[in-house]
Amino acid sequence: MKNTTLKGIIAYPITPFDQEEKVDILLYKKLLERLVVSGSHAVAPLGSTGVMPYLTDEEKEAITEATLQQVNNRVPVLVGVSNLTTDKTIYHAKFAEKAGASAVMIIPMSYWKLTDDEIVKHYDAVARQISIPIMAYNNPATGGVDMSPALLKRLLEIPNVTMIKESTGDVQRMHYLKRELGEEVAFYNGSNPLALAAFSAGASGWCTAAPNLIPELNLNLYQAIQDNDLQEAQKVFYKQLNLLKFIVSKGLPRTIKAGLKIQGIEGGFLRSPLKPLTENEIAEFKLILKEVF
Amino acid sequence: MKNTTLKGIIAYPITPFDQEEKVDILLYKKLLERLVVSGSHAVAPLGSTGVMPYLTDEEKEAITEATLQQVNNRVPVLVGVSNLTTDKTIYHAKFAEKAGASAVMIIPMSYWKLTDDEIVKHYDAVARQISIPIMAYNNPATGGVDMSPALLKRLLEIPNVTMIKESTGDVQRMHYLKRELGEEVAFYNGSNPLALAAFSAGASGWCTAAPNLIPELNLNLYQAIQDNDLQEAQKVFYKQLNLLKFIVSKGLPRTIKAGLKIQGIEGGFLRSPLKPLTENEIAEFKLILKEVF
Amino acid sequence: MKNTTLKGIIAYPITPFDQEEKVDILLYKKLLERLVVSGSHAVAPLGSTGVMPYLTDEEKEAITEATLQQVNNRVPVLVGVSNLTTDKTIYHAKFAEKAGASAVMIIPMSYWKLTDDEIVKHYDAVARQISIPIMAYNNPATGGVDMSPALLKRLLEIPNVTMIKESTGDVQRMHYLKRELGEEVAFYNGSNPLALAAFSAGASGWCTAAPNLIPELNLNLYQAIQDNDLQEAQKVFYKQLNLLKFIVSKGLPRTIKAGLKIQGIEGGFLRSPLKPLTENEIAEFKLILKEVF
Amino acid sequence: MKNTTLKGIIAYPITPFDQEEKVDILLYKKLLERLVVSGSHAVAPLGSTGVMPYLTDEEKEAITEATLQQVNNRVPVLVGVSNLTTDKTIYHAKFAEKAGASAVMIIPMSYWKLTDDEIVKHYDAVARQISIPIMAYNNPATGGVDMSPALLKRLLEIPNVTMIKESTGDVQRMHYLKRELGEEVAFYNGSNPLALAAFSAGASGWCTAAPNLIPELNLNLYQAIQDNDLQEAQKVFYKQLNLLKFIVSKGLPRTIKAGLKIQGIEGGFLRSPLKPLTENEIAEFKLILKEVF
Repeated sequence: MKNTTLKGIIAYPITPFDQEEKVDILLYKKLLERLVVSGSHAVAPLGSTGVMPYLTDEEKEAITEATLQQVNNRVPVLVGVSNLTTDKTIYHAKFAEKAGASAVMIIPMSYWKLTDDEIVKHYDAVARQISIPIMAYNNPATGGVDMSPALLKRLLEIPNVTMIKESTGDVQRMHYLKRELGEEVAFYNGSNPLALAAFSAGASGWCTAAPNLIPELNLNLYQAIQDNDLQEAQKVFYKQLNLLKFIVSKGLPRTIKAGLKIQGIEGGFLRSPLKPLTENEIAEFKLILKEVF
Repeated sequence: MKNTTLKGIIAYPITPFDQEEKVDILLYKKLLERLVVSGSHAVAPLGSTGVMPYLTDEEKEAITEATLQQVNNRVPVLVGVSNLTTDKTIYHAKFAEKAGASAVMIIPMSYWKLTDDEIVKHYDAVARQISIPIMAYNNPATGGVDMSPALLKRLLEIPNVTMIKESTGDVQRMHYLKRELGEEVAFYNGSNPLALAAFSAGASGWCTAAPNLIPELNLNLYQAIQDNDLQEAQKVFYKQLNLLKFIVSKGLPRTIKAGLKIQGIEGGFLRSPLKPLTENEIAEFKLILKEVF
Repeated sequence: MKNTTLKGIIAYPITPFDQEEKVDILLYKKLLERLVVSGSHAVAPLGSTGVMPYLTDEEKEAITEATLQQVNNRVPVLVGVSNLTTDKTIYHAKFAEKAGASAVMIIPMSYWKLTDDEIVKHYDAVARQISIPIMAYNNPATGGVDMSPALLKRLLEIPNVTMIKESTGDVQRMHYLKRELGEEVAFYNGSNPLALAAFSAGASGWCTAAPNLIPELNLNLYQAIQDNDLQEAQKVFYKQLNLLKFIVSKGLPRTIKAGLKIQGIEGGFLRSPLKPLTENEIAEFKLILKEVF
Repeated sequence: MKNTTLKGIIAYPITPFDQEEKVDILLYKKLLERLVVSGSHAVAPLGSTGVMPYLTDEEKEAITEATLQQVNNRVPVLVGVSNLTTDKTIYHAKFAEKAGASAVMIIPMSYWKLTDDEIVKHYDAVARQISIPIMAYNNPATGGVDMSPALLKRLLEIPNVTMIKESTGDVQRMHYLKRELGEEVAFYNGSNPLALAAFSAGASGWCTAAPNLIPELNLNLYQAIQDNDLQEAQKVFYKQLNLLKFIVSKGLPRTIKAGLKIQGIEGGFLRSPLKPLTENEIAEFKLILKEVF
């Protein structure tokens, strides 16, 4: 499955914790299995949804291994391996490759704003140590640095950086990627409320936590686009828009866990400082979920 | 033709000046005629493209009358009547109605940031004095105030405010309008590089100066959307995208005039402080135009 | 009094209207007289506080003449002459000079964002037609364009552009002006809540509407700075800070009029779309004023 | 020395690495000693300057212990203990207290934007486990979340949260803190180019990496303020302003290391992805340093 270009609905599992805020691997596998059997085209552990930065090295390794074992080659697995230091990023990238990952996703996490040259060297240093493809991920809201289209273009000159995930929420960035980078490079949308605009602009896939809650609607949107049926795509999109906006505005780990509970599915606990949604937010979310089904 | 809901390609003429920076009505009529015969679904004099705020009252009246006379009911005419004061806005709205305009467009121009209540009262005061429809226009970059979706919703409670033009460049605003305001209200895209995303989101029309230069491509995009053919829409959109981005980034009055000249068409002079594109910008524009045809 | 460099407290009168929203020149003169006798070091008619952009050419001329007549050389008069077009700006600048103004203030009002070259040409065209000094005024919040420190430096190469008024609210801009522009050029603070920081940074004066309400506190701050007494300056500043923040956040024309009324002084009416403060805002303002005295 | 309120110049050491990017404790102690003997009023290891987030737990502990040992009670020691998770923050806070720290500094690091309630609970959970004072640190540029003045006010209700460090670069925030929080609470400036404005506004201290390069100028500014001599403070401030702006704009760890080298002092290596200044930047920095001395 290596070197497969990802496409379609790329589903992000949450990382559930037990009451003592320890990672609950058994529950994780159950939640992951739901994503696979409901038809996701790929899964992506250790993303923002999976609260990767809040985990220890050992926990990340356990999640990586549990994912590959549970998925068992049914769909491609894209593993998040981002880290503040280059050394640690290399370490986790190599671990993911050895464990059998199809590709790795790297966001240039930054405490100190990185220069363009530092970011290129960072990706290059990792790329030299692995042979699976790398998805470069741009999300200033979580990563703290906004990679310009020009920088993304430079990153794509590194041989195994072959995919771009854009989460700025600016559709113009996608237009640029499509126009400038040509057919060889695939770009992915990471901004949920932009799903329709991104597919209209030519995105290859949608990186999303929503399949934890509404897999059918997510898959139907992708299908309508494949069928070149804009009217159907529009209809399906507007049906899920309020939910997409809610999970983004209140935070994916919090809302996915809350949404699972509303649907009667055990989603575990969060790790502090992240706390559950408030009563009012849960009530609002129930109304939104009711409207969808 | 009154009360007709506008749709499709709504073309914005420039206001040409002579060498002494006086409005050139004869040249204006020629440029306007090009927009009508090339197939625009409506025309909109005295918009931002037409440098309305830089004109005297008498010049605005002359343009209004010249437009209605030249168009002669072939397509609907949407006249810009915005002004800093409520009294002057009413004056120009009444003038436009009397001259035969199909509708008026009003942006809440602001020097002092207006409160929501002041904006509602402003629109309401104008609406009471005319019986043709009003298009409320949101463009913080030129008008200086950003009307929230919630405020736009309030404006739509005024009986003859029936259309919304969104130029923030944020497709999420359009999603909101579509989702919240329902089927009765039409929204229009005023951000050129967002043309595909806006039509995908369900926009009724596209307010644009581009038909001064590339009417066929603009019309083809609308037609592909009407045909529910997303792949064709995408193809046509990417063909014109660079041009759309260029005319927005360098300013519509400057670029349309320059583009006409490149195409061998007389476009007149600008009024100071606006100045022509630089030599380098014109060279860049030539390349972009060459690529399109 | 021509060519005098302004310094200290430069007071901005409001432009009062009667119940029919016509300019009330008699009341204007009374309000202006209060500013002069309470000790302001200069007065500045037709500023943002004076709602200059909402006035007709005739009204601006009447205010200019009334001001020079009433002040009668007791303090310097700085007249606002900004306009969207270069021609009109020249017209009003010449009128102000002829009427006896000490200097004119010009903000590059913009509907279409002006390029740096356009702004330089605009100021240069005006400067060539008058011989009194020009204060270049930077206020992106009202003027719509943010002049970079580098552009301000270019403007200062025009012989009679000798003063800069900074209203971005960013003290770093003032540091730059002081450091880069040297001793010959005076800079003025136009952001009320920044009064202490600006004087600490070396501002020559404070352009403010506050002397309509609290002239003594404004003058005491300037005096403490002249006395090199930072502790006193800090004490006097914190006493007036809440008031300064309130009048800025709610809009100067609205709040000065409301504040005058609270103090039992007739301030006239506003011109639509500007409306009076709400009941709640007036109640809040009363508390703030009570705290000051 | 516990419970001492910090004041004056609080100096931030860098964390030097050897060629293999391992922490160089011996060199660290030498650099720290320079800060103490040059007269800093306190030192603050494991800040942003000390690239704390790029260090392992063991490295942080080694730095903490080395600092307390080297300083040996000559000045107060403020230790940075921030971490993404609450558990780890508690762990490092307890370690610092046990090692003898005078106080700890905590920024609410965030990958997922934290709600106000989550931030309060985070600080409260840490505060319950230690008895030394906590400095709450607001720096959206590095921490990813901007704590509103209202939230800072809530944090101060926690008994041992007694100090606030503001690094937004907005002097208005400091005005608010001074005005609203009263005399009991001390606030500190963490934005170098704002040093004069912050002291003018009443800041108790200046948290800065600049004493690694120009301790005398930093101390002289504080002394001028203590002497109520604004003119001298202004003079001293403008002398160091360009340097302060440069080290902030290019990143403190990179510039302090480069500045030490220019001054002939060994500063070690950086940890990737952070890289040294470019040749051009070093040349620019040399000019700035030359101007200062």
